[in-house]
Amino acid sequence: MIINKKRNSMSKIKYVYTFGGRTAEGKADMKNLLGGKGANLAEMCLLGLPVPAGLTITTECCTDYYENNCQLPASLMPEVWAAMQKVETNMNLKYDDAENPLLISCRSGARASMPGMMDTVLNIGLSSKTIPGLIKKTNNPRFVYDSYRRLIMMYADVVMEKAEDLDPAEGKGIRKILDEKLDEFKRSRGYKSDTDITGNELKQLAEDFKALVKKYLGVEFPDDARAQLEGGIKAVFKSWNGKKAVSYRKIEGIPDSWGTAVNVQAMVFGNMGDNSATGVAFTRDPSIGTNVFYGEWLINAQGEDVVAGIRTPNPLNNDTKNDQNKHLPSMEELMPEAYKELFDIRCTLENHYKDMLDIEFTIQESKLYMLQCRVGKRSGKAALVMALDMLQEGLIDEIEAINRVTPDHFKQWYLPVLNPIIEATHTSIAKGLPAGDAGAVGKIALTCEKALEYSANGINCILVREETNPEDNDGMFASQGILTARGGMTSHAALVARGWGKSCIVGCDAVHIQNNKVTIGGIEFNEGDTISLNGAKGFVYNADIPTVDPDLTDSRLVAFNKLFEKYRTLGVRTNADSPEDAQRALDFGAEGIGLFRIEHMFYSKGNEEALELLRNTILSKNFNRDLLKKDIKKETDSKKLDDYQSNKTKYETFINNLTRLQEAIKIETKGTLKVMDGKPLTFRLIDPPLHEFVPQAYETEKIEALSKQKGLSFNELKKILEDLHETNPMMGLRGVRLGIVYPEITEIQFRALFEATAELKKEGCNPQLEIMVPLTIGVEELKHQKKIADKTQAEVETKFGLKIDYLYGTMIEIPRATLLADQIAEVAQFFSFGTNDLTQMTLGFSRDDVTTIVKNYVAEGIIAADPFETLDTKGVGQLVKMGLERGRKTDPKLKIGVCGEHGGDPASIEFFYQAGFNYVSCSPFRVPVARLAAAQSAIKK
Amino acid sequence: MIINKKRNSMSKIKYVYTFGGRTAEGKADMKNLLGGKGANLAEMCLLGLPVPAGLTITTECCTDYYENNCQLPASLMPEVWAAMQKVETNMNLKYDDAENPLLISCRSGARASMPGMMDTVLNIGLSSKTIPGLIKKTNNPRFVYDSYRRLIMMYADVVMEKAEDLDPAEGKGIRKILDEKLDEFKRSRGYKSDTDITGNELKQLAEDFKALVKKYLGVEFPDDARAQLEGGIKAVFKSWNGKKAVSYRKIEGIPDSWGTAVNVQAMVFGNMGDNSATGVAFTRDPSIGTNVFYGEWLINAQGEDVVAGIRTPNPLNNDTKNDQNKHLPSMEELMPEAYKELFDIRCTLENHYKDMLDIEFTIQESKLYMLQCRVGKRSGKAALVMALDMLQEGLIDEIEAINRVTPDHFKQWYLPVLNPIIEATHTSIAKGLPAGDAGAVGKIALTCEKALEYSANGINCILVREETNPEDNDGMFASQGILTARGGMTSHAALVARGWGKSCIVGCDAVHIQNNKVTIGGIEFNEGDTISLNGAKGFVYNADIPTVDPDLTDSRLVAFNKLFEKYRTLGVRTNADSPEDAQRALDFGAEGIGLFRIEHMFYSKGNEEALELLRNTILSKNFNRDLLKKDIKKETDSKKLDDYQSNKTKYETFINNLTRLQEAIKIETKGTLKVMDGKPLTFRLIDPPLHEFVPQAYETEKIEALSKQKGLSFNELKKILEDLHETNPMMGLRGVRLGIVYPEITEIQFRALFEATAELKKEGCNPQLEIMVPLTIGVEELKHQKKIADKTQAEVETKFGLKIDYLYGTMIEIPRATLLADQIAEVAQFFSFGTNDLTQMTLGFSRDDVTTIVKNYVAEGIIAADPFETLDTKGVGQLVKMGLERGRKTDPKLKIGVCGEHGGDPASIEFFYQAGFNYVSCSPFRVPVARLAAAQSAIKK
Repeated sequence: MIINKKRNSMSKIKYVYTFGGRTAEGKADMKNLLGGKGANLAEMCLLGLPVPAGLTITTECCTDYYENNCQLPASLMPEVWAAMQKVETNMNLKYDDAENPLLISCRSGARASMPGMMDTVLNIGLSSKTIPGLIKKTNNPRFVYDSYRRLIMMYADVVMEKAEDLDPAEGKGIRKILDEKLDEFKRSRGYKSDTDITGNELKQLAEDFKALVKKYLGVEFPDDARAQLEGGIKAVFKSWNGKKAVSYRKIEGIPDSWGTAVNVQAMVFGNMGDNSATGVAFTRDPSIGTNVFYGEWLINAQGEDVVAGIRTPNPLNNDTKNDQNKHLPSMEELMPEAYKELFDIRCTLENHYKDMLDIEFTIQESKLYMLQCRVGKRSGKAALVMALDMLQEGLIDEIEAINRVTPDHFKQWYLPVLNPIIEATHTSIAKGLPAGDAGAVGKIALTCEKALEYSANGINCILVREETNPEDNDGMFASQGILTARGGMTSHAALVARGWGKSCIVGCDAVHIQNNKVTIGGIEFNEGDTISLNGAKGFVYNADIPTVDPDLTDSRLVAFNKLFEKYRTLGVRTNADSPEDAQRALDFGAEGIGLFRIEHMFYSKGNEEALELLRNTILSKNFNRDLLKKDIKKETDSKKLDDYQSNKTKYETFINNLTRLQEAIKIETKGTLKVMDGKPLTFRLIDPPLHEFVPQAYETEKIEALSKQKGLSFNELKKILEDLHETNPMMGLRGVRLGIVYPEITEIQFRALFEATAELKKEGCNPQLEIMVPLTIGVEELKHQKKIADKTQAEVETKFGLKIDYLYGTMIEIPRATLLADQIAEVAQFFSFGTNDLTQMTLGFSRDDVTTIVKNYVAEGIIAADPFETLDTKGVGQLVKMGLERGRKTDPKLKIGVCGEHGGDPASIEFFYQAGFNYVSCSPFRVPVARLAAAQSAIKK
Repeated sequence: MIINKKRNSMSKIKYVYTFGGRTAEGKADMKNLLGGKGANLAEMCLLGLPVPAGLTITTECCTDYYENNCQLPASLMPEVWAAMQKVETNMNLKYDDAENPLLISCRSGARASMPGMMDTVLNIGLSSKTIPGLIKKTNNPRFVYDSYRRLIMMYADVVMEKAEDLDPAEGKGIRKILDEKLDEFKRSRGYKSDTDITGNELKQLAEDFKALVKKYLGVEFPDDARAQLEGGIKAVFKSWNGKKAVSYRKIEGIPDSWGTAVNVQAMVFGNMGDNSATGVAFTRDPSIGTNVFYGEWLINAQGEDVVAGIRTPNPLNNDTKNDQNKHLPSMEELMPEAYKELFDIRCTLENHYKDMLDIEFTIQESKLYMLQCRVGKRSGKAALVMALDMLQEGLIDEIEAINRVTPDHFKQWYLPVLNPIIEATHTSIAKGLPAGDAGAVGKIALTCEKALEYSANGINCILVREETNPEDNDGMFASQGILTARGGMTSHAALVARGWGKSCIVGCDAVHIQNNKVTIGGIEFNEGDTISLNGAKGFVYNADIPTVDPDLTDSRLVAFNKLFEKYRTLGVRTNADSPEDAQRALDFGAEGIGLFRIEHMFYSKGNEEALELLRNTILSKNFNRDLLKKDIKKETDSKKLDDYQSNKTKYETFINNLTRLQEAIKIETKGTLKVMDGKPLTFRLIDPPLHEFVPQAYETEKIEALSKQKGLSFNELKKILEDLHETNPMMGLRGVRLGIVYPEITEIQFRALFEATAELKKEGCNPQLEIMVPLTIGVEELKHQKKIADKTQAEVETKFGLKIDYLYGTMIEIPRATLLADQIAEVAQFFSFGTNDLTQMTLGFSRDDVTTIVKNYVAEGIIAADPFETLDTKGVGQLVKMGLERGRKTDPKLKIGVCGEHGGDPASIEFFYQAGFNYVSCSPFRVPVARLAAAQSAIKK
């Protein structure tokens, strides 16, 4: 701002940069000033490529426009007109000339691509003065009038209509009025397509349009070419703050202050006959990455026609031919000279930009013009293949090759995805939050029972629910994908699905379930109907789109892994709670388990019995410990003695349940320890939000069912559940608090883990046991639990006659723990930051409840991103650093990791790397992403 | 620990300090080493007072005993026997002597008083060897055998029985067995009292006791006086870790490491006939503070008899006479010489200790012995009176006088309390958490309706509930006191009652409500029965105990306020939400309002309409803002247009409700601004945990009632309530988040406050408006809300034609806000630390749910105190300091206060003072406490 004001106070600011011929005032690295499109147009001119001449108005001008209360700076238009003279010279045409008129386009062009978000006006310069000359010159009145009515439609909508003119309740704007007029005209003539309209009719339509504009907007359509140009420039600036653009910027994190450039460029026409054409191309195949020239084109057409998909575009060359288009002639065949020229340009551009480019071109009466070039978007597969190829070709070096593949690209190699070619032929019916990156296709199941039934019969299915909870885990596991109407990126469905690498779309508010039917995006489905999910993009398809499985032995994948792994220093572990998860994570390159949640093993398939044991344990916590300890040696009251005895019986039931639970834990954890043989495995003591394992006090039906099963009366059970109820369970009796209040629960866990370890050692394995205590607020809890651990350890060592080595550590997930980390490190041998809970407490955000709040906060720019996806480095990050520094102050070699969701998020991984973490831990399917992000962080540093 | 080990390695440690005659090895300031009792016995010897000779074994010896695996240090007993020779010389008696035997007592004596928590053994030294000599000497066989059977009972219980011998289920220990034997004997003889038993019978009983000891404990009662002494010493050390003592220490915060001293002292007997006596006295009246010698005594009795209350004790002197004891002869009358000596000692001690003392004495055959002296406990009234008197007498200076009155003492001057004299004649039937310090008496009301009915008829009542919620506020306000079965010190009942200065006892688990009856401590009550509450101690009485009202004009109170106020620098404000509260706080010395919770005004009596408006607002939030903003100018689908219109109607209802709410807020806030004329008043924008204002989704009956009232269908309302439901409401849509998602709610509040201010200015008042935003996590929210404020301010200023000055500030109550306080201070003109929420988030403690956890954590020494009562300076305090320092770094003059519960807690106030706060704010009834604590903090510094 200050810089801008300074600049404004100077007398001359250069707002306009021309390009054309083989020269330009700008160049590729001036994107910030000229926008991406403008900078690349200039660069292409400098490379000597054929570009229609034009000028770029800088992004600074846009900023000044807004600072100046939406007025163009006084010096702008004189500068534009001066530059236009160069354009005229270059194109050998003259703007606003009756004989040889130049038409121009006004296009936006921001620093970052914002496709379709801002306005464009084409054919500017047509007026009663220039139309006759153009007709004479082209001998094509239909072309001219068609261009004219398009200008009127675009210009009236984009330039002339003001937002405040609209009554949204009335539901009409000038664009709609003109569209209706056009449709009505076609209907009256029985025309099916715009192309059926004759030149004369178009001429009349243009007149009708102008009358309608006058009627509804109260002003005449400008017949002055110079006024049209100025209006076009203003419209582009104005569209920078249009509703669509603003919300797009918020989503993409593009600052409002950047502004857009305006590209005023001579029009060239691909629709001037059969020697004219238009096309788009990629310098390499963007979906599989092979080094072939790949593109599509249309004869006698305009750019929009290729993109809009009204006509099936022709293949550019043999390499682009496929089943759909192989019968259509290629440009290579029909226009070999132009093709040759384009192919040479492709090589020039790749050599110059050293990357795959996305280009647009037009051929006007056999002359090739380049309209756009930019670095091309590509699939994850393609990104990796291109990076390796370009490295081999010597275009780029190793560092660049590694950086060319984003973590998002990379993870696509590890997941089944919808077949991209088939997916491209369908339109999605709804969009939700992309919570599980895989693709999935299957029959709709509205209940877990149905999903299990499908699964048992080998039928793929998609579980569609309002939301999910741990009781749905079986059904979720049995499904290929999960689609929910509610919930955010860290909802139960999202977390669990991600952990399993399932396809998952959550918070899809176009989903409505009622009476065993589901409406998705307005379409009604029954159970058994097939849908497909693109979990990486959040798209739901009313179609059967097959998925493609990952091949981990693919030589390109192996080569790329080898390439970047040598740069990585940050360890990558996984969060896994079963032998199967552990094995998958090892396959994906995990170096250990950073988080094994003991209570999560009860979720796994086949552990219903253990889940039942845990439930029994919870329900049998209803003894009174004070009464238990009561010194009744002087007690004579028989009622009190009875109470004492009944309480003692309750306690014995509790202990009995725990003993059985201990055995279940031992068996399951031993299995995973065996898979991880020789690699570290961190177990977290039980941290159950208890209400998740038993019904809520108001769930009458569930209580009834459970009470029968447990042989309790309804009221007895209800009373127990009411006693368990917590107002804010996230900050209630969880984690180590459970182990302080019920030390017996701690003891059986240590015993189970020590015995599993001892048994494995006897079997000749090399278990690397680590145990951590969750939810600590200071060192005292660790000391308390350590006493229990020490006693138990001694007993197990005696029983098995061997020594057990293990690391004793803690989660750092409560703000207080970060503040007192120096003391905690006196007892803890390692820290594992639980950034999920730390984020909840530091921001006071309950992740179950803040979806709307986070959405609003991100939209209003109050926070940069969803703090449960990407670590809030500004706030939570301070505490993380504080905890790390204080811990290492006590113990400089303290091992420090993170096991929250952030351990799989590239931006967060960079933060952890820079902060000095030893490792991150994430769900198995995120392990590859984490490894690449870790390597890229190391390279960046 | 390290110090101890060093000490142990040295050859000679002095464990024993003798006292007796006019000399002693210890003195008063050696309490840490000799315990309170031992140090004061030594001091009395040095003052030349008659003290039975004895020796004190140090607390270090106790520590060594425990470090040494419960073995006495080898050097101890030789040192004891050497010291015993001095005692013998002094008393002219000989231990374990057949002719002239010395008997001794073994008593504990820790640094801090732990009354009744540890063991005592009296009459040590009686054996077959010494008994005949003592009988001969005293010519009183009954006395000797009574002493002997007491020794056996105490010694067998305390010294001989081991904990592991006991089966608590069997319910018997040796003490019980001997007690039963004694009872059985008396029954067999038809005796009513122990004194009916003859000397011979006692001799036989002693033999029977010894046989029982042998039978049940398997060992002989020791007939060796030297063994008895060693056993007594060990027993006292052992009792330091007895169950009672350990739990007492946990409650009182006495470190386990302190250990107890043992006082071995020559026995003197007040029960040797009518020239013997025993008594306790205070050097001034401990309940009202007047400077008179106050005490009670009994002829021919032992100390226990006075304390136990078996006989009504005689008044010490005329000053001690009252209705109950005026017929009994005083010591002044019966033993004028001994009284004279005691009175002189009283003066000597007060002059020496410069404080009121609590003394114990025994007269054995006309000779006066001092057995104990210590600083006496006193009532709050007495503390203040004594401090002022002693200041006037020149005994102490101003600083000392101020420090003599604790905040707990002081607050008693401001509350109605149970008449202490009458209260002392009753025994409580239950004990809960002392949540509201006042005393109260009234009829039991089990429902709010009943309480309101009593209130309307001018009948005092006590509301007895399982727990309370905001809907009960009316009923609570109508009651004199509140008693709940559940909830902690920061439960709804506790917070509200404290704010109103009501008597309140919460978490009283002896309360059981069923079928319109309530059982308290096993006694059944009906509605309308009278009970009394001592809210300062948590006692419930089955009695009609009148209360005594505070007199703020009392000259002593006024004088003391004047005395300390000149030292106070920290400001004291109040948390008040109504004109009445504001006025009360002003009367109590508040300098402003630090927290006016806008949503709390809806709780107040007479604001049912406003509460209804708030409820309507909440229920009408169910519009879809996205749909509202939707650009439907191209929309043709009539269903979508209908949806648009219905949504628009919903929004209009919402706005209409808000407009009415605005008016209600204006009226109420204006009233309080007027009361506070010229003094600052901080309003906090609405921060409602919304679920508190509407029924929960499962409260079927309430939903039914409300749906009828609101003209909604049951399902409509239930759906709205389900949408409102939050899993963790404490971290949900609260505070400023509400104002971000619904900016309209922010706007009406600012408008109401600005208009109230403008109207008052027009009326010639001087409102000092401060507005703060709750629950901010960074500066961006403040900027967002400030835009709304600025716009509204400009509009109100135009409307009224005047300028409005106000301070714009924020609560600092989320950890992230403390971390980013430097940025926040760029916009906020003041900070008010909300330490309640900050404690919740920093510790991850939901105050609604952690009562059990906090209890366990304090018991296990994991945290020092309930962090919702006394600020957790170790953890939360770090964030508070960080927030303060960072805020002041940006703005060195930033005004900083605290408005959590901690603002009224003396220990926390000291922290805030030292940290550099400008003010604390607390409930009106805590204002005096806060003022005194602030002055004492300043003095301390």
